[in-house]
Amino acid sequence: MKPLKQGNITSPLGFKTNALCCGIKKKKPDLALIYSITKAVAAGVFTSNRIKAAPVKIDIKSLKNNCAQAIIVNSGNANCCTGKRGYADAQKIVQVVAADLDLEPKNVLIASTGVIGKYLPLNKILNNIPELIKGLGFNKADKTALAIMTTDTYPKQLAIEIKLNGKKVTTAAVAKGAGMICPDMATMLCFITTDANISGAVLKSALAEAVDDSFNCISVDGQMSTNDTVIILANGLAVNKQIKKKGKEYRVFTAALKFLCLQLAKMIIEDAEGATKMIQVSITRARSKKEAKQAAYAIANSALVKTMVAGENPNWGRIPASLGQANINLKEEKIKISLQKKVVYQNAKPVLKDKDVLIALLKKKQVNIDVDLNIGNYSHTVWTADLTAEYVRINAEYS
Amino acid sequence: MKPLKQGNITSPLGFKTNALCCGIKKKKPDLALIYSITKAVAAGVFTSNRIKAAPVKIDIKSLKNNCAQAIIVNSGNANCCTGKRGYADAQKIVQVVAADLDLEPKNVLIASTGVIGKYLPLNKILNNIPELIKGLGFNKADKTALAIMTTDTYPKQLAIEIKLNGKKVTTAAVAKGAGMICPDMATMLCFITTDANISGAVLKSALAEAVDDSFNCISVDGQMSTNDTVIILANGLAVNKQIKKKGKEYRVFTAALKFLCLQLAKMIIEDAEGATKMIQVSITRARSKKEAKQAAYAIANSALVKTMVAGENPNWGRIPASLGQANINLKEEKIKISLQKKVVYQNAKPVLKDKDVLIALLKKKQVNIDVDLNIGNYSHTVWTADLTAEYVRINAEYS
Repeated sequence: MKPLKQGNITSPLGFKTNALCCGIKKKKPDLALIYSITKAVAAGVFTSNRIKAAPVKIDIKSLKNNCAQAIIVNSGNANCCTGKRGYADAQKIVQVVAADLDLEPKNVLIASTGVIGKYLPLNKILNNIPELIKGLGFNKADKTALAIMTTDTYPKQLAIEIKLNGKKVTTAAVAKGAGMICPDMATMLCFITTDANISGAVLKSALAEAVDDSFNCISVDGQMSTNDTVIILANGLAVNKQIKKKGKEYRVFTAALKFLCLQLAKMIIEDAEGATKMIQVSITRARSKKEAKQAAYAIANSALVKTMVAGENPNWGRIPASLGQANINLKEEKIKISLQKKVVYQNAKPVLKDKDVLIALLKKKQVNIDVDLNIGNYSHTVWTADLTAEYVRINAEYS
Repeated sequence: MKPLKQGNITSPLGFKTNALCCGIKKKKPDLALIYSITKAVAAGVFTSNRIKAAPVKIDIKSLKNNCAQAIIVNSGNANCCTGKRGYADAQKIVQVVAADLDLEPKNVLIASTGVIGKYLPLNKILNNIPELIKGLGFNKADKTALAIMTTDTYPKQLAIEIKLNGKKVTTAAVAKGAGMICPDMATMLCFITTDANISGAVLKSALAEAVDDSFNCISVDGQMSTNDTVIILANGLAVNKQIKKKGKEYRVFTAALKFLCLQLAKMIIEDAEGATKMIQVSITRARSKKEAKQAAYAIANSALVKTMVAGENPNWGRIPASLGQANINLKEEKIKISLQKKVVYQNAKPVLKDKDVLIALLKKKQVNIDVDLNIGNYSHTVWTADLTAEYVRINAEYS
């Protein structure tokens, strides 16, 4: 498994892309198309927010046949809370893309990200589809990575190579994140291309596993968006023997997919709105997996812990305080809390009391918080970002 | 029921108080004592955080006899996550106060607020108890209101008068809040004095009702502290016929208590760390009370909604997006969302689209968000504050 230098979603065989500025944003690319030259096996994971954007609703339907060949994406407008008109708008875009590419509409997926509660500027999008398709190429992935960004400060893409039955298989992804990233992946889009030959059912479970151990382990601000989407297209052009069951080849492929997703998830945290530091919260020896997760998120989503890290403020007492809020089984006298592997709290009392040492620990770019509950066998790790005044500024300003 | 001009915790008959600077904080009052000249019926409500501070553990035990006569309070140090030593320190303080006042230790309650994970400067406190007691008076409530503050910018106190069986009954409270205020009342201290004559069992239920409709309906940052405490002392000096059951007199008294607690809860929100606006979130027609609460808190605790209000940013789409996260029953097409009583979203589509009108609505000092779920009969209202860069600054700085 090796990451490719300057790898991107066109690194796997048979994928083209293009992006342009259709005018949703001012003078910035905001419309992109990802296309496989042959029909691909496809799977998706979507937001669990009860309010879902129109494109999410359409994709969930279309993916019932585990197949797709193109993904049309816009940034700057989420097409969410836009009712029947928003749904019809998304359908219309899909139909036009499908017609121009000579595909069935169900094989064209759609994603949107941006402001909620505004209708799409439909004509701006439709008028630009012919040019978008005409310009599809094998060397335009950088443009697409830019076009899907909202408040991201840099594009996020990566490709890796593995061998399956002696065949080279390449898998790549492009993602955008920035705000609202939470347990169930919020305002997060990720499109994965692979030339692996794999069956629909198995691809679905590989994607679910990978997302669970990556995008579902990150949180920026505890918010879950209406538009979160992870889609994978597997066109089989690597001509490896088709992966049909959960054997060795499945595990190799899934491990690569997990690695890819986790790297992108971490890039999203690194580039979280206003973030200056990454925070890794690891819970060990919890009573159950569910409780380990609850505990990790209670700490990772605590505004007080996040501002503590931002300010390099050694008030580590905010960690047990937020842990106590998690509504899980715990025994105060069994808990051990470490900051950067140095124990700060054990046997229900403070251990590391030297302010200057504590401040020095927090000066690092990544802050690791380890909480050993010592009452069970379950672990969970999540990643989040610190909370800064810049986060507030970004989200208070009107876009 | 009328609020008293400059009413405070010594307005009810028979209550004295005093406060001084013992040196936990630099040159600010940080130690206070509240004292009833006769033994009082007492009740308390405490944090539901699984990690509880030593004073909370002691009070829960002491209040088993529904009786108390004094409350000793310090600010600047929470005496939490301090293990056996912290517990012994709190016990020692209680013993010394009790001895000096000639009371049984179980009739002296204790509360602390401030930094977590540090031992109390025990001697500073003990050495000042004699002076604190010597100075007890009927005109020192303002000092006490200051002494319990941490990041509050102004003292919070109020007294009201009611008539019970023709007798004048006065009830008063002093509170501190500022950060971490959440569903279950966080880093919030409130001490209530009343000269009502009421039985212990009935007082307990009156307090529970009042807290549920006030302090448990506010949230600053979704954080629940380890030290939250509401204590009421009822010394009976108003000589009204003792309230022993939940009849008319109980209802009058409880209504007054609720009013008092709600006013103080709102002061806490108004004075929340860095807050510039109050946000009222009302959910109506939910499937259950629990779901109404969940929905209200999902919106009230959303960093995106709070920054939207702070920035007078008309992105109201963040309201349905955070509502969708609440994991409750909802039907998108039935939801109606209003800002300042103007409908912005109905029938699953945007209604009020004029940016300037939306911005004007958000310019008010209090922003009301009403969400009609239209699928049931249950309502709930919560109050919160906006999220500003100042909140981050306060919490990032090392105290």
